[in-house]
Amino acid sequence: MTNLFAPIPPETPAEIIQVLLETGNFRLERIVSNGQATPPGEWYDQDTHEWVALLTGSAGLSFADEPEPRVLRPGDYLLIPAHRRHRVEWTDPDQPTVWLALHYT
Amino acid sequence: MTNLFAPIPPETPAEIIQVLLETGNFRLERIVSNGQATPPGEWYDQDTHEWVALLTGSAGLSFADEPEPRVLRPGDYLLIPAHRRHRVEWTDPDQPTVWLALHYT
Repeated sequence: MTNLFAPIPPETPAEIIQVLLETGNFRLERIVSNGQATPPGEWYDQDTHEWVALLTGSAGLSFADEPEPRVLRPGDYLLIPAHRRHRVEWTDPDQPTVWLALHYT
Repeated sequence: MTNLFAPIPPETPAEIIQVLLETGNFRLERIVSNGQATPPGEWYDQDTHEWVALLTGSAGLSFADEPEPRVLRPGDYLLIPAHRRHRVEWTDPDQPTVWLALHYT
């Protein structure tokens, strides 16, 4: 059995992105963040829609068209339509933040 | 913000199945079980593949081609290929069991 909350190597400098499932139509990823954020001034502008859920930890997610970041807590999910510019302002510094992300066209 | 762990009505007699996302290629569901199981002697035999993750609670999942049920705990996930016969033997009687299920062709 594989587990979404399985331990990750300590002091991993980068986010871990693990593709759980991929077809011609979608890609399901498990992402584990340890305090990482999108580099200052950078925005994601994706060609695919992204459904994302935060399972553990916490994060601040900004949209270019909103004045304040949204704070995500365990269980929170949302849909980010293609080309809606967004960035991760912060992720939990004290525990792993586990995301599920489903990218699709 | 919508939340995967949002409270459900107490004493709900049936499982709750909520379609979170659907395209021509896949359907993402949130399922909340409160002790329900597949009726005795029945098996699921699905035309679609199903990726399923258990997020809270616990469950026993049997496959017709395995001698013993698998016990699923929070974070456990697996892929059930189309037409692999399976059934839910039990779900946690004491707390909601929240699943994410991604059905696809």
